[in-house]
Amino acid sequence: MIGSVTAPAGFAAAGTTAGIKPSGKPDMALVVSEGPEFTAAGVFTRNKVFASPVKVSREVLADGTCQAVLFNSGNANACNGAQGDADAREAQALAAEQLGIDANQIAVCSTGLIGELLPMEKIRTGIGQLTADLGNDEAHAFAAAEAIMTTDTVAKEALVTREGWTVGAMGKGVGMMAPSLATMLVVVTTDASASKEALDAALRRATAVTFDTLDIDGSTSTNDTVIVLANGASGVTPSQDELDEAIHAVCADLAAQMQADAEGVTKRVTITVTGTEDDAQALNAARTIGRDNLFKCAMFGSDPNWGRTLAAVGMADAAMDPENITVSFNGQPVCVASAGAPGARDVDLSGADIAVEVDLGTGGPGTATVRTTDLSHAYVEINSAYST
Amino acid sequence: MIGSVTAPAGFAAAGTTAGIKPSGKPDMALVVSEGPEFTAAGVFTRNKVFASPVKVSREVLADGTCQAVLFNSGNANACNGAQGDADAREAQALAAEQLGIDANQIAVCSTGLIGELLPMEKIRTGIGQLTADLGNDEAHAFAAAEAIMTTDTVAKEALVTREGWTVGAMGKGVGMMAPSLATMLVVVTTDASASKEALDAALRRATAVTFDTLDIDGSTSTNDTVIVLANGASGVTPSQDELDEAIHAVCADLAAQMQADAEGVTKRVTITVTGTEDDAQALNAARTIGRDNLFKCAMFGSDPNWGRTLAAVGMADAAMDPENITVSFNGQPVCVASAGAPGARDVDLSGADIAVEVDLGTGGPGTATVRTTDLSHAYVEINSAYST
Repeated sequence: MIGSVTAPAGFAAAGTTAGIKPSGKPDMALVVSEGPEFTAAGVFTRNKVFASPVKVSREVLADGTCQAVLFNSGNANACNGAQGDADAREAQALAAEQLGIDANQIAVCSTGLIGELLPMEKIRTGIGQLTADLGNDEAHAFAAAEAIMTTDTVAKEALVTREGWTVGAMGKGVGMMAPSLATMLVVVTTDASASKEALDAALRRATAVTFDTLDIDGSTSTNDTVIVLANGASGVTPSQDELDEAIHAVCADLAAQMQADAEGVTKRVTITVTGTEDDAQALNAARTIGRDNLFKCAMFGSDPNWGRTLAAVGMADAAMDPENITVSFNGQPVCVASAGAPGARDVDLSGADIAVEVDLGTGGPGTATVRTTDLSHAYVEINSAYST
Repeated sequence: MIGSVTAPAGFAAAGTTAGIKPSGKPDMALVVSEGPEFTAAGVFTRNKVFASPVKVSREVLADGTCQAVLFNSGNANACNGAQGDADAREAQALAAEQLGIDANQIAVCSTGLIGELLPMEKIRTGIGQLTADLGNDEAHAFAAAEAIMTTDTVAKEALVTREGWTVGAMGKGVGMMAPSLATMLVVVTTDASASKEALDAALRRATAVTFDTLDIDGSTSTNDTVIVLANGASGVTPSQDELDEAIHAVCADLAAQMQADAEGVTKRVTITVTGTEDDAQALNAARTIGRDNLFKCAMFGSDPNWGRTLAAVGMADAAMDPENITVSFNGQPVCVASAGAPGARDVDLSGADIAVEVDLGTGGPGTATVRTTDLSHAYVEINSAYST
């Protein structure tokens, strides 16, 4: 327990067991800002099919303010039609009433199975338990972090302290490999004072290079939500750079925890692409490699089958010189000018972390990094055995 | 043994063991047209990174004529730089010399590991064996089909007979799941007489709805090649419609054999998308679903977790009404207006064939079908267990 969301001044949290999960594990959480400021920003899933709580929370964050975030796990409240929207709004309203604040100041986040209606009787009971049990200590922060877990094996918390101000965060998510769960929910809290523009900019800059580049299997959930709450309780107004750095730090920390906890992962693979026209093309190429099941199978097999990297990147929507591609594994060149390098088949990939660097040979300035994992077990039994 | 490539009049074939495969299994094949006509067409991988034999064969097919196709398995001759090109051209020239025809009349196809130079001594020996053993009978056709197998578990042949003319075909490929092998090599032979324009049109129409819509894991190889040879030996000139139908028939037959033989497959899944603006958008949506690992895991688990279908299609580059999507499994509606249908969780998906129909709710005329498979075993052990 490191404190996380309640470490900054002026934040309270709670976690409880409302009985939503068949397992009987904790399944509801609440994070409340005590002000004096209620600046907030959020980023949400880009999936055209998004859950009711995403719809409701987008409305809450629209004006750049938010006082509390209500969570449930065990049910995504996605693809439930108008009833799903109504249930999300009822939970929001009930929490608002009990906290004595406006409903449009409460964001809601759900994670779990898609297509099942929320068990509202349990949700109502849970909200009562949460509002009655808010606390500022580490135990309450941990209880909240624990209550948003789904297939996560560990609770995920992060904390950075700066000169006179603090940023805490909690999150859940197992890369993108959770079975139609909301793959990622995060709330970041800070007692820094920040304009909504500064906070929004800091959050978007941080997520663009952390959560947005964590790509385990290319599956994007209906519920992804990242919300930051800044209450100014520290009296400190950091510069944009200071704010960017601190929010990036907690997001990067949580993203690394998610990658490490991805279901079935045995390797953490970092793919960096260079030598294409712009960063967007480099990101497309890195994602294309990171989503290729054959590449991922080779990683699981510790198989330096670099041909799969070329076969994968050749389908990317990125400018490249197909006869001048360079690939290195863990810093050792395995492919130069799109042909095998001496000793390429002997590179040791047995470690848990593998760095893949691909230069597309155009000489362009584009660069991007994606973090992914291997694809493990039986699907791999065939595909990882071939070239070794 | 059904004859396949040698069933049409005026075609000979051979298969042999040149020692390219460590397993000692047959690894070289040759299909020769005896004319009188040598009309031909070909389609090749869209991968920007393509193998040397693809480069050479594209040149051969450029003028719409081809007299023979030389194959090797066990080595893709891809990503071998200038030496790879030189080796492909040497094999082409040697076969041409021994067959007494122009080198630019011989297409070459390779399948196997990427990034290893062809063992040219073995290739040269194999070419001598092939040209000395050409035959018109079923045994020779089967020997050729067997010699192009890689991780295929069965040789793949097809044959249709029409009024006075015949179309035969052989192919290799295990969906798109082969470990950086050329996932698909096909040669189609016919004794029909056809213009190069008619033959090219028939081939492209056929591949567009057969091989091009077989998508097991989204990985596209560096070596994919489909070549059709028409020699007019039957003296029959079918209409365009007749030609289209017959070539489609053998391509559809081989594509179905490839889907059924895909590595690790336990389910054959057919995904049909309707209700979007045009067929291209429908194809994009069907591919997006068919490439989603979580959807595929659910199929393996016989789990009617329809929420994964919506989560997957929501990321497609296709017009849709996110609140009016309909999904049915094996003809039973599981999702109506983007919400669960009664009994959705009870649909029986235990059979080996699963039909998934998705309407994106725009009322548009777009429609497309993609055939894929499940994603089986350990990766699935986590992901297929969640909602059941």
